[in-house]
Amino acid sequence: MAEAINRVAIVGTGVIGAGWAARCLARGLDVAAFDPLPGAEAKLRNAIANAWTPLTQRGLAPGASQTRLTFATSLAECVGEADFVQESAPEREALKQDLLAEIDAASPPRAIIASSTSGLLPTVLAAKMRDAGRLVVGHPFNPVYLLPLVEIVAGEKTRAASVAAAKAFYKAIGMRPLVVRKEIEGFIADRLMEALWREALWLINDNVATTEEVDAAVVYGCGLRWSLMGTFLTFHLAGGDGGMRHMLHQFGPALKLPWTKLVAPELTEELIDKVADGCEDQAAGRGIAELERRRDAFLIELLALVQKYWPEAEGFAGRI
Amino acid sequence: MAEAINRVAIVGTGVIGAGWAARCLARGLDVAAFDPLPGAEAKLRNAIANAWTPLTQRGLAPGASQTRLTFATSLAECVGEADFVQESAPEREALKQDLLAEIDAASPPRAIIASSTSGLLPTVLAAKMRDAGRLVVGHPFNPVYLLPLVEIVAGEKTRAASVAAAKAFYKAIGMRPLVVRKEIEGFIADRLMEALWREALWLINDNVATTEEVDAAVVYGCGLRWSLMGTFLTFHLAGGDGGMRHMLHQFGPALKLPWTKLVAPELTEELIDKVADGCEDQAAGRGIAELERRRDAFLIELLALVQKYWPEAEGFAGRI
Repeated sequence: MAEAINRVAIVGTGVIGAGWAARCLARGLDVAAFDPLPGAEAKLRNAIANAWTPLTQRGLAPGASQTRLTFATSLAECVGEADFVQESAPEREALKQDLLAEIDAASPPRAIIASSTSGLLPTVLAAKMRDAGRLVVGHPFNPVYLLPLVEIVAGEKTRAASVAAAKAFYKAIGMRPLVVRKEIEGFIADRLMEALWREALWLINDNVATTEEVDAAVVYGCGLRWSLMGTFLTFHLAGGDGGMRHMLHQFGPALKLPWTKLVAPELTEELIDKVADGCEDQAAGRGIAELERRRDAFLIELLALVQKYWPEAEGFAGRI
Repeated sequence: MAEAINRVAIVGTGVIGAGWAARCLARGLDVAAFDPLPGAEAKLRNAIANAWTPLTQRGLAPGASQTRLTFATSLAECVGEADFVQESAPEREALKQDLLAEIDAASPPRAIIASSTSGLLPTVLAAKMRDAGRLVVGHPFNPVYLLPLVEIVAGEKTRAASVAAAKAFYKAIGMRPLVVRKEIEGFIADRLMEALWREALWLINDNVATTEEVDAAVVYGCGLRWSLMGTFLTFHLAGGDGGMRHMLHQFGPALKLPWTKLVAPELTEELIDKVADGCEDQAAGRGIAELERRRDAFLIELLALVQKYWPEAEGFAGRI
């Protein structure tokens, strides 16, 4: 945390790695990248060029340039002088364990090493590293060059200073780091996304809906709300003046119904308190009516935005 | 379908019923409402007045007026001359069964009767009705006066003409009706929302995250994407040039991992085909790069919109 991060190494340059590279370059950093796949360099440079237009609209940092990307010819060359290494290899545990051990051996001891894994545990990923204390999970969301969320997860041996350094670095490149309190598979966002994704696959599998129908249900229903408020604050407003506490009492019994293939936790008084108190804390003194006004004004602009980019006239979603 | 719908009866005037009333009034319809709760009329008129500002921004139909609301003194008076009855009573099966039977007895035989239930089966809800053929589920999303999605679900005895009439009516009041192919609990959107909601409750229950952290994970990660594309088209773009088919092969093994408390369906070749073909059909000939450009341009405007309505400066979400 004390030292500035100027040189970033990107290991693995698929969709996620390329997104990291583009985001870092746009912030004026030097980026070294490596991927053993044939043709990887051309694909990476093309992906960065495509991302550069939206990144320019968002605003580039002084000195930002695509030319500050170096495509290394070996892993050792890629990470040899890095202040921060972001690994985005395929989601296979053994492969990542070996790769992270190699990165550990080849990079400066001061460098922070982060894995983009969507849900593997950092303690497991660090198994073969000499210094597991500098590994964190830094899980981003596609497109990495635009979406702000990054989940930071520490393993058993991760040093607090490594978490702090990763958090400071991600903030510096315009992200919203969310430090996950417990080391669990899938972290937070993927626990939620996987639940929705698996349920969506059941709907297709059981011939209840087409992919287009499922997507329409998301976009025109819950998705519009979730871009401003998450699931908790959304339901806080579904409870009327009574907020989340009323909502839990009213819809709590529905948790027992077979409305998903996922079994719900027992709705104890303790859980009700945690959820309702959390929502009131988030609202920071604002009443339901004020939150509703804010949500509605947002939704009106968002509906126009969706219409602009996903217009029926162009044949998208016109069937639903 | 042949007859115009001019008089709408709203039975139950909580958050959802009031939302229906506001939407119908804004479209220039006559609305009769009924709710036996003390003080219901004043609460309803207040809720409609609050919704009128955003509805005016969206554009009122000629003749639209809050004065065209009548608050009935009995259920019979409310539904006696209705062309369309929308029931939004509490989510209790027995209560709804009795209420729908009463509505059936008191309304004109030509009227369509729709229930706002979030997931109960229309065949079960119609158990005590004389004419179950005119009952459909018409499940909306809060705020009903702004969100376009409404799921239509037919029961075993529902006539095709009732589904068609409900669909035409909902379209006429500016909604996007999604006719659900099978009668299953939770329909489509709530199957998805419940899975995410239950998983979110597990995260709170197990002290993995606070409600604010879960909401931040939704808003700054998946939620931003889901307001333009649903979960399938989103993942279609996560697969790089190979699209959904490549993505399923790459992340398919993760379906076996404990990334949620929900067990996934078996990823058979048949399921892969259904999902990948569905996405290609949705894309309507557009390549991944074109979809990415459209998504990115949308996200840039959406990020600015979220910042406008949920600014850190006002103390919201500033902790994450």
